[in-house]
Amino acid sequence: MRAPVTSGAYKPRGSKRMAEESHRQDSANLLIFIMLLTLTILTIWLFKHRRFRFLHETGLAMIYGLLVGVILRFGVHVPQSMSDLVLSCAVNASPATLLVNVSGRFYEYTLKGEVSRSKGHQVQDDEMLRKVTFDPEVFFNILLPPIIFHAGYSLKRRHFFRNIGSILAYAFMGTVISCFVIGLIMYGFVSFMKVVGQLGGDFYFTDCLFFGAIVSATDPVTVLAIFNELKVDVDLYALLFGESVLNDAVAIVLSSSIVAYQPAGDNSHSFEAMAMLKSFGIFLGVFSGSFALGSLTFSVYHVTKFTKLRDFPLLETALFFLMSWSTFLLAEACGFTGVVAVLFCGITQAHYTYNNLSPESQDRTKQLFELLNFLAENFIFSYMGLTLFSFQSHVFNPLFIIGAFVAVFLGRAANIYPLSFLLNLGRKNKIGSNFQHVMMFAGLRGAMTFALSIRDTATYARQMMFSTTLLIVFFTVWICGGGTMPMLSFMSILLSNEMSSAVLDGSQRRNTKHESAWPFRIWYNFDHNYLKPLLTHSGPPLTATLPACCGPLARCLTSPQAYENEGQLHDDDSDFILNDANVSSMYADVTVSTDASGSRTINRKHSSTASTGGDDGLDHELALAEHEVAIRGTRLVLPMDDPVELPTTVTLPPPPSPPRSDPRRHRL
Amino acid sequence: MRAPVTSGAYKPRGSKRMAEESHRQDSANLLIFIMLLTLTILTIWLFKHRRFRFLHETGLAMIYGLLVGVILRFGVHVPQSMSDLVLSCAVNASPATLLVNVSGRFYEYTLKGEVSRSKGHQVQDDEMLRKVTFDPEVFFNILLPPIIFHAGYSLKRRHFFRNIGSILAYAFMGTVISCFVIGLIMYGFVSFMKVVGQLGGDFYFTDCLFFGAIVSATDPVTVLAIFNELKVDVDLYALLFGESVLNDAVAIVLSSSIVAYQPAGDNSHSFEAMAMLKSFGIFLGVFSGSFALGSLTFSVYHVTKFTKLRDFPLLETALFFLMSWSTFLLAEACGFTGVVAVLFCGITQAHYTYNNLSPESQDRTKQLFELLNFLAENFIFSYMGLTLFSFQSHVFNPLFIIGAFVAVFLGRAANIYPLSFLLNLGRKNKIGSNFQHVMMFAGLRGAMTFALSIRDTATYARQMMFSTTLLIVFFTVWICGGGTMPMLSFMSILLSNEMSSAVLDGSQRRNTKHESAWPFRIWYNFDHNYLKPLLTHSGPPLTATLPACCGPLARCLTSPQAYENEGQLHDDDSDFILNDANVSSMYADVTVSTDASGSRTINRKHSSTASTGGDDGLDHELALAEHEVAIRGTRLVLPMDDPVELPTTVTLPPPPSPPRSDPRRHRL
Repeated sequence: MRAPVTSGAYKPRGSKRMAEESHRQDSANLLIFIMLLTLTILTIWLFKHRRFRFLHETGLAMIYGLLVGVILRFGVHVPQSMSDLVLSCAVNASPATLLVNVSGRFYEYTLKGEVSRSKGHQVQDDEMLRKVTFDPEVFFNILLPPIIFHAGYSLKRRHFFRNIGSILAYAFMGTVISCFVIGLIMYGFVSFMKVVGQLGGDFYFTDCLFFGAIVSATDPVTVLAIFNELKVDVDLYALLFGESVLNDAVAIVLSSSIVAYQPAGDNSHSFEAMAMLKSFGIFLGVFSGSFALGSLTFSVYHVTKFTKLRDFPLLETALFFLMSWSTFLLAEACGFTGVVAVLFCGITQAHYTYNNLSPESQDRTKQLFELLNFLAENFIFSYMGLTLFSFQSHVFNPLFIIGAFVAVFLGRAANIYPLSFLLNLGRKNKIGSNFQHVMMFAGLRGAMTFALSIRDTATYARQMMFSTTLLIVFFTVWICGGGTMPMLSFMSILLSNEMSSAVLDGSQRRNTKHESAWPFRIWYNFDHNYLKPLLTHSGPPLTATLPACCGPLARCLTSPQAYENEGQLHDDDSDFILNDANVSSMYADVTVSTDASGSRTINRKHSSTASTGGDDGLDHELALAEHEVAIRGTRLVLPMDDPVELPTTVTLPPPPSPPRSDPRRHRL
Repeated sequence: MRAPVTSGAYKPRGSKRMAEESHRQDSANLLIFIMLLTLTILTIWLFKHRRFRFLHETGLAMIYGLLVGVILRFGVHVPQSMSDLVLSCAVNASPATLLVNVSGRFYEYTLKGEVSRSKGHQVQDDEMLRKVTFDPEVFFNILLPPIIFHAGYSLKRRHFFRNIGSILAYAFMGTVISCFVIGLIMYGFVSFMKVVGQLGGDFYFTDCLFFGAIVSATDPVTVLAIFNELKVDVDLYALLFGESVLNDAVAIVLSSSIVAYQPAGDNSHSFEAMAMLKSFGIFLGVFSGSFALGSLTFSVYHVTKFTKLRDFPLLETALFFLMSWSTFLLAEACGFTGVVAVLFCGITQAHYTYNNLSPESQDRTKQLFELLNFLAENFIFSYMGLTLFSFQSHVFNPLFIIGAFVAVFLGRAANIYPLSFLLNLGRKNKIGSNFQHVMMFAGLRGAMTFALSIRDTATYARQMMFSTTLLIVFFTVWICGGGTMPMLSFMSILLSNEMSSAVLDGSQRRNTKHESAWPFRIWYNFDHNYLKPLLTHSGPPLTATLPACCGPLARCLTSPQAYENEGQLHDDDSDFILNDANVSSMYADVTVSTDASGSRTINRKHSSTASTGGDDGLDHELALAEHEVAIRGTRLVLPMDDPVELPTTVTLPPPPSPPRSDPRRHRL
């Protein structure tokens, strides 16, 4: 602190100068992170340029974070600032706002949080380290939403919905199983530690369960980055990606239900059925609430269908961005979980709203969320590295750490193998044992696990959890993330032997034609015939699908474009197929947005087939015929009683031909 | 506040629940703003769609803000929360952080600011209103930077640099004149008010000067929006826009120098030469420091010239964004003014870095900053409307308000007319008296004035200034902003009579060929021959421009692309001309990025001229010949002793032909 100014007239300037000083300090700290990110980006570029693949970019960000953490911890010695003052006032509550009467002037103070008693003084020790420590809520309110939204927005929708049953099984049942398995194993370890006398504080059963919940969230980032490059069957890829996206949502709701269960359980390990049920009720309530909000808010955006907003891409993009953000805020304001709402918002926006956007806005939104996701992700991972040294209350307990690694491994195994066995009983497109190993191995822990564990580090148990979680994230990202590529290259020989034909000529798709379960088929029909036409410009006009009695209503709700689209209905479905390429293009390896160019290519082909009847046209006819089988395979989920459809099936645009998508996939 | 939990075990949960409650409240408040923005966007669309022009979108945002302010003020009655607590502790300083010992537990509090003594209790009155009030620093650190950066990034560089002398004169001398004129007039008014007994508190001469500084900042937003649509001479437009951008920077530095001058002047109106000089020194120091930082930081980005980063647009865009942001933070951390640094950073980034970016990244960055600018701008203006009712300490003094309006009017007049007269003595392309009236009338006050005045509202004088400033902004945006269009439609008959030929056939450009003053010509030569080749891929290779003795150095610094570019050097300069179209496309009326398509078109024309010698080619030859005069006119600032240049002049790509750019300009 600058010399305390005591003469009355200059007081406000004194406090102002102090605020300025603190602002400069904040700017400098933020600058450190920006420089860190810059460094990461340059190195990522170098890695991409030189085709290094042994370390994923998030792993890289962590390493830089670690280095900066070491420097800040041991290298920089900031002169001790004595600006902190301990007031020992006799108040019996800790209000959110405090007015302090300093010699006649009132200063307003806001509550920042509780400081652990044992380090009431140690807190002052490392001003610098404390300054670079963010409020954990920053992760939940600023950094996670773009990441999760982007994951939802870039889900391969067709394959996601086709495998929705398996994905939900893994995400919901699997995460709950994993949570309880880890919780029980940890409880065993903790009991053992208590006997041995290695435990330095309280550690209840609910803490164990909480730990199980937070380390059960696998990270979609690395899955996305790695599996892009491999010719893995798209269905299985959708399975893995969908699971890792959805189990984030499950883990977050699960952990908050466990916290809500805690006070009723009196912090003991007694297992009360009633409290358990209540907790389960909270879980369901929060989950369905967030889901409903996420899915429904977008319908406000539905206005775009009837406006000519698409003439102004800037307005459209801004509106899209604001609506997605307001979903998050609305869920938070209602007491639901914003991150979960944002996930479902992303999925529904991609499914319905995306089709209403102008091509320009589609590009813009995709690029915007891509950028936000990229920055947030790298920031979180480099911050993770930093906290290993900057966090002040680490509790590293070797026994607990070993136990945690064992538990995480077993928990993942108890999720994947039994569920895969059960699912294989009902699946036509079996989940091979090789792929099960891959799922087991690729279950990295990342941003969500970190954010959940840093949220509350007040008690001894939570501090130990946080330190251990950090190590688990490091290990999985560096070792598993780095090892997945070699492992997959080894496995992919088997995998590609098993499936290469499937991917290349679509025969696998023929095999899966009857795989879609009836709930999905019913939902698909409903979606295709009613929801899509209602909410977007695509799909058959409502006048064709609704019963005659609803005629006036249908006419009123059908946009003029829908009639125009009637002939080329299937572009919409080809969009589904193109999403494959779409997701792959997310990682900046591809300059041109594949989706846009893809559809443009298709349009060109369309017209050339229609206009020229020469050799070129004939070639296309052949190509169409060649691909038709594959397309029919993917289209069999459509109702056979739809009269509009069958005659037009022949004019379907071909899916992206293998030679065009191959260079991207093989880029190793 | 929820019932205070007193049993030891639940303390942390109690404060946690309170934090959650406060978080939900915050989310709800933020949601109000998002909804406000959404509403604004939809109405803007409606206005654009229906071609309403009488109200600018920022004026619209203010109206919505006003409405919400009224509702919050009079409609919503939030049950009184008693969570605030007045602690009367005997401390003799107000530290930034406070540790409060509440029955054995330590809570950390951070200083939020001083609360005016007189309303030590009133502060608690309107929890809701207080909640929607942002920390003023949010404007400076989050909302202003994107707006100012975007203004700098979208300056019409060619015309800006051609008129740099006049722009600097208006921005620096003009703003200082305006500041002192307003300050003196206000001092007269305030003295009169003191005599009459209308003044309720202290109001010093430095306060008057401060007021003069903040209301001297004119807003580029409306200038940009309105003049786009008119066929005003591009040079004059650059003059107006450049002035309004730069005087923001001058006003911000000026006002902070005045504040720094205050304590030395002992808050009295005594006019000390030394203190004045010191203040002037601070002004120069801060300004040149921010300028240097803004211009130099980008050279870190210079690495991009030698890397192949352009293969990865996402990385490139992210890096670009981070570098621009770090300029801001660096300036703040050094104690300079971040906003000013960001302005010059934007100008230099657009001048040098933009050429190094891949076309994809050029689009991405432009769209990104456009979106950020749009959101920030509308947010500030709707917040302005809101504060009229939500701000708790308004001081509306009729005499002061009348005085302020008179002073603002006279101050602007004392800036424009005398300076225009002086400048016209040296200018070939005279600033017509009509255009002087337009400059006078279009001097709207906007975001910067608001942000400067809300930054400090602690004293009576500052509160009165804030309330008055708010009214000035409202008046200028609604009345002047709304009236500019009709006024210009009336004036533009004269204006276009005067200049339409100039804009349409470029003859005006021929007239201005010798207009560029020698300092500009020297700088241009230096820039074109050394800086551009050094920092970008464009321009002549350094090996050609540097003396022979520097050969090895030049070879090392010249990128391979520069040699390739040697033949088509002039694309770079055509880029200058295209910037014209570039700026117009900012307001979302144009879907396709004109710059990108423009350069693509040129490339196509190039090749068609080269390959086909048919009728088409002949037409192009003719078109080229037709446009050559105009191009020569704009190119005469180039050194005549450059041997590389003359032979290649014939192959210059044509500037955007008038029919192509016209539809955009006429869209009224």
